[in-house]
Amino acid sequence: MVRGMKNPVATAALCALLATSLPAAFALTEAAKPAPAPGEIVNAAPEADWVAIAPDDLLVMTLAPDPRGGAGRTGERRIVIQLMPAPFSQGWVSNIRKLAAAHWWDGLSINRVQDNYVVQWGDAGGGDKLKARPLPAGLVAVPERDYTVSADAYRRGAKVSRKNWANRSYPPIGHDDPYAGRTTYWRGFPFASASASDGPAWPIHCYGMVGVGRNLSPDTGSGAELYTVIGHAPRHLDRNIALVGRVIEGIEHLSSLPRGTGPLGFYEHPQERTPIISVRLASELPKAEQPRFTYLSTESDSFARYADARANRRDPFFVTPAGGADICNIPVPVRRVPG
Amino acid sequence: MVRGMKNPVATAALCALLATSLPAAFALTEAAKPAPAPGEIVNAAPEADWVAIAPDDLLVMTLAPDPRGGAGRTGERRIVIQLMPAPFSQGWVSNIRKLAAAHWWDGLSINRVQDNYVVQWGDAGGGDKLKARPLPAGLVAVPERDYTVSADAYRRGAKVSRKNWANRSYPPIGHDDPYAGRTTYWRGFPFASASASDGPAWPIHCYGMVGVGRNLSPDTGSGAELYTVIGHAPRHLDRNIALVGRVIEGIEHLSSLPRGTGPLGFYEHPQERTPIISVRLASELPKAEQPRFTYLSTESDSFARYADARANRRDPFFVTPAGGADICNIPVPVRRVPG
Repeated sequence: MVRGMKNPVATAALCALLATSLPAAFALTEAAKPAPAPGEIVNAAPEADWVAIAPDDLLVMTLAPDPRGGAGRTGERRIVIQLMPAPFSQGWVSNIRKLAAAHWWDGLSINRVQDNYVVQWGDAGGGDKLKARPLPAGLVAVPERDYTVSADAYRRGAKVSRKNWANRSYPPIGHDDPYAGRTTYWRGFPFASASASDGPAWPIHCYGMVGVGRNLSPDTGSGAELYTVIGHAPRHLDRNIALVGRVIEGIEHLSSLPRGTGPLGFYEHPQERTPIISVRLASELPKAEQPRFTYLSTESDSFARYADARANRRDPFFVTPAGGADICNIPVPVRRVPG
Repeated sequence: MVRGMKNPVATAALCALLATSLPAAFALTEAAKPAPAPGEIVNAAPEADWVAIAPDDLLVMTLAPDPRGGAGRTGERRIVIQLMPAPFSQGWVSNIRKLAAAHWWDGLSINRVQDNYVVQWGDAGGGDKLKARPLPAGLVAVPERDYTVSADAYRRGAKVSRKNWANRSYPPIGHDDPYAGRTTYWRGFPFASASASDGPAWPIHCYGMVGVGRNLSPDTGSGAELYTVIGHAPRHLDRNIALVGRVIEGIEHLSSLPRGTGPLGFYEHPQERTPIISVRLASELPKAEQPRFTYLSTESDSFARYADARANRRDPFFVTPAGGADICNIPVPVRRVPG
């Protein structure tokens, strides 16, 4: 199952047609073949275009089984998060690796679900010093300036020359962005920057991105309180909160949780919270239990063709290609490697 | 409860602070008062800026109670949809009024929930002619050209002069849009157009917008099969599917449904579908049961200030205002009128 697939809004009738009679109905010659859908481009990408994600970059969160039950909905709920690559947000990412190693989140809970915004987890007693769970030793306080990375630091970290930085510009055709001078991809993540040729760069709040809850400025959060986006990209948070990764599997276990009815979507009753059984770096799990994932290299030709097809849908369902796309509407495809 | 409020990602500690000690901690003089948050601007808008929605423009869908139960989650699930204003999508909207008057959806179900995409409802047997529920008489077949409205038709329908059309340009400050020459608001809905001064206009697929499922072109759907957006705005669907309204209350009853595990997010087992008890125009309900709503006039100064604040967050949580926003990140505020 590849994430990042999007499908037209077909009726049940069309769905039945696609499932049963498509090969016969569309026995087309090569010349008349319809343009590939973005998902078909992804499925056809050569193995060499898929990049393995290191076990040390994968955070595995296991939730208690869904008490609401229902067909096909019992059993374990597992969410996998890919951590942000250097040089972005590395202070918080390092804290998160320490918190996971200390098993700090085990037995805590999901405390907030706000529709079209975020799901948030951590220490529900964190607002009360007497009840708060102590943080492990060795966490660093990260300054606000680390919400962004300077062009020089980015080029050093990314080993990109100034020339290539200017060239490696997403999107492949001219799109505008209301929030930044440029948007681009780097190692499987979406980033924005102040201009096409220079200036600081920062990660983008797209659906499924994971960020660090915090108190009022100059606090930037430790990484103990995390959230993920479950609605339209809240990009006003870009450069205002640290982003540390993105959910690459199991987001539906978070996005389908009952919404909280308290202020900001916090649950009003403790029994509404979803218990966290454990959060582990995949590298800490026994080898046989480590989940393995690859992402479609955002530096590959396959990705460029996929992004172009997302911005210009020419597959049969579509009448008018958009001629553009915002970066959060072009999610980076991720694949689970059968284990 | 006003929809369209968005909150920063505060920690539990900050939430506790805001709830308990803010008045004391922030006993500020008028001069030092922090800039208002978008929600504060909305709450301060004068009564005259709120526009009543006609009962004939409200569709009320009642779902069976949630079998999953849970604290605060029993009882009726009601979703209210505001229908699209003329001159947009009126062929489909007229079909939908006829379908509601015929009680056509009663006893049908929600059949598809695809994460970060759509929830879809209608006749689960629609793909099978022997099982399909017959449509009521008098529905019209709407042509594809009605996905958009020409500038002339828009100006006639909206009673706007060419000069005012060019002037009433959202956003108030210069933002870019990757999908269209311009985005704007009209009577509480988001629209795009080919250019700032002329060309066709069309409704936008933002979170909560309601559209018409269809088969392959040139079919445009009747309005019997509907969906709503529950993820990042899938704007590649703009101009490719008819949009007929938006959910203004109860979207959480749809967005938190279990995701379907079949292709395109269709449920694999009939028992996973959520039964629809009824769909009615509010105007058909007894007067005492008619829900009443107002929206913040998108033509008001209050709305312009709200949109500006959404694009430039200056309230205390924020460090760096974005300097822009995409139209789907500025939802039109809606208020339920106490009945």
